[in-house]
Amino acid sequence: GLTTKLSHSAGINNDDNEEGFARSLFYQELATEAISVLGGQRNWVSNTANLASLIYNKYKDESSFKTRSVNWVGFYTVDQSAVSSDQNKLVLGPFQGKVACTEIVVGKGVCGKSAEQKASVLVDDVHKFPGHIACDPASKSELVVPLLDPKGEHLLGVLDIDSTVHNGFDEIDRIGLEFVAKILVDSTDWAQP
Amino acid sequence: GLTTKLSHSAGINNDDNEEGFARSLFYQELATEAISVLGGQRNWVSNTANLASLIYNKYKDESSFKTRSVNWVGFYTVDQSAVSSDQNKLVLGPFQGKVACTEIVVGKGVCGKSAEQKASVLVDDVHKFPGHIACDPASKSELVVPLLDPKGEHLLGVLDIDSTVHNGFDEIDRIGLEFVAKILVDSTDWAQP
Repeated sequence: GLTTKLSHSAGINNDDNEEGFARSLFYQELATEAISVLGGQRNWVSNTANLASLIYNKYKDESSFKTRSVNWVGFYTVDQSAVSSDQNKLVLGPFQGKVACTEIVVGKGVCGKSAEQKASVLVDDVHKFPGHIACDPASKSELVVPLLDPKGEHLLGVLDIDSTVHNGFDEIDRIGLEFVAKILVDSTDWAQP
Repeated sequence: GLTTKLSHSAGINNDDNEEGFARSLFYQELATEAISVLGGQRNWVSNTANLASLIYNKYKDESSFKTRSVNWVGFYTVDQSAVSSDQNKLVLGPFQGKVACTEIVVGKGVCGKSAEQKASVLVDDVHKFPGHIACDPASKSELVVPLLDPKGEHLLGVLDIDSTVHNGFDEIDRIGLEFVAKILVDSTDWAQP
């Protein structure tokens, strides 16, 4: 009836509640594990490599995430060699998944947009996103979270997550991954090559 | 009979020949793909990240490799921050697989032994290797190939491959991965953070 429809469209039926609650717990666990994994090391390459692995494998293992088919988890960092030029670029960092594009101009595609705005970008259908860069044709939705220095001013890079299904991510994922990104930034020295 | 046993122990029966031939072709293809993937980029983080992905996914896809169950492919690089100290260390670089140890003392474990000797180390059963560092308890055999500068003098890092079965790798793999490691070194600028 009408009540069911209304509550469903507002995302507050019981199934949605349970799923969302499970996913919030998932991100709390992920945050705890990230603190543990990143705790003994401050090298940015090691820490981004291990965090990409932690997130990717936790998505694969947990029942609350299996239907979302996450196929790529990784990092792009600000390309220090291009900072003095007139075109800022991101360069591929450690990741889990298939071979990826190595350079992204800030402002282009989902990663580039997140870097430009220093804000998370959540895309339900990447093929509808203007200027989408199709590294892996299997990717259908995407969430990109910026890595900002502790003062929140300077961009260090972005954390990029892809799914092979549409609507793979929502606000619960955005909040969860922004928290994990903050743990990473605080645990890491960001000296660049 | 005796003949079969002898030829089998020498690795020259027809099945072994065919399997070895297929695997040699596999590495020729891998080398060609590595040249293509690494061709447009000289950043060491991007190139090691993409090469780990290329190798890992090719192992997963190709029938000649499926029985070997490769569970980890990645890099450790010389820790420049420790070079002036009395204890040389390797630090975790980009990889595919589960979360890994972030620091290895040169001389310790299979990676550390390869770094110390600047030579490949092939281990049929890691649990019999003195001082083995068990990052992932699933790993049973391992092949580590050094990354040496173009003159073959200075160590840049190591390429490390793990399998969940005993005897996962042999001389064909060693030769194939040493060739791919050389392609990586020649395609990459190794400035460190």
